[in-house]
Amino acid sequence: MIRIYLAGPDVFLPDPLKVAQEKKDICLKYGFEGIFPLDNQLNFKGLSKQQIGLLISKSNEDLIKTCQIIVANITPFRGPSLDVGTAFEIGYGRALGLSIYAYSNVAENFITRNRKYFNLIFPKTDRDVNNMSFENFDMIDNLMIDGAMSGKIIITSVPENEKYTNLVGFEECIKNICG
Amino acid sequence: MIRIYLAGPDVFLPDPLKVAQEKKDICLKYGFEGIFPLDNQLNFKGLSKQQIGLLISKSNEDLIKTCQIIVANITPFRGPSLDVGTAFEIGYGRALGLSIYAYSNVAENFITRNRKYFNLIFPKTDRDVNNMSFENFDMIDNLMIDGAMSGKIIITSVPENEKYTNLVGFEECIKNICG
Repeated sequence: MIRIYLAGPDVFLPDPLKVAQEKKDICLKYGFEGIFPLDNQLNFKGLSKQQIGLLISKSNEDLIKTCQIIVANITPFRGPSLDVGTAFEIGYGRALGLSIYAYSNVAENFITRNRKYFNLIFPKTDRDVNNMSFENFDMIDNLMIDGAMSGKIIITSVPENEKYTNLVGFEECIKNICG
Repeated sequence: MIRIYLAGPDVFLPDPLKVAQEKKDICLKYGFEGIFPLDNQLNFKGLSKQQIGLLISKSNEDLIKTCQIIVANITPFRGPSLDVGTAFEIGYGRALGLSIYAYSNVAENFITRNRKYFNLIFPKTDRDVNNMSFENFDMIDNLMIDGAMSGKIIITSVPENEKYTNLVGFEECIKNICG
């Protein structure tokens, strides 16, 4: 069965295994096996925080290597862009030749989010507080992310309190892989 | 000559070619060739914004493939974490087997920055406004970033207005590659 690595900030949810199972069920419905970052059983006994972090990092890299596809949740996370761990994993998978698909539960594009986000500091400017420019390429996020995609990024508008749990866009994304 | 891809949000500076040249000069001083994301001459004539973005993305991926090392500026950018384009490139280079080094011009570690950043919303909590957890692995940034490193991340405290231009940590980073 084709294996899909489920990248995203979902691991930071109060109950990450719940969304993991929901995503795996949706994958299965379309004939795929969903692989979640926490799937490997790791032994943290006697390890320092740093050693645990490094073990998880290595485990995630190893999991990506066993997959043929990444489906990434690129919903903006703690700022105008996607989670940086997810950005790393998209790059990692892309270089290995995996097909990359993504969805976002925020409808505004990158430049709109940047303007909105940083208008809190400097209204009506297209540079931030450090006089650094915003990308303006009609894209969903940083051009390296949009450029890595094997298909159209699925955008869904969801209620604010479902931003990180609503899976309508995720399912659409999985459906699209099938053609 | 060993080629180093110079990843970072430096491309968003008011004069990116200035810092590009400074970094290339430092690389040369230690026997390396520095490669900056804007080095390829691209022809944007007649292209839409999106097409331009995709061309830059492809060009950056191609440049990384010609390098043996990435030195990434992982100074927090528009949020508590590094620039997402840089995170992508670290992942991309890592999967290709490049050696990855990084520096940051902000001294606080990841959990401290997250707490500080999100204390603006909810004081004294280790979860954000969406009840999502912070990583706490004594690391500089997301564990996928720290986990990708071939050497110690160089941390330098610099004045706020030099956060994206000070190259003391960058030079230290290049020096460390030599052993």
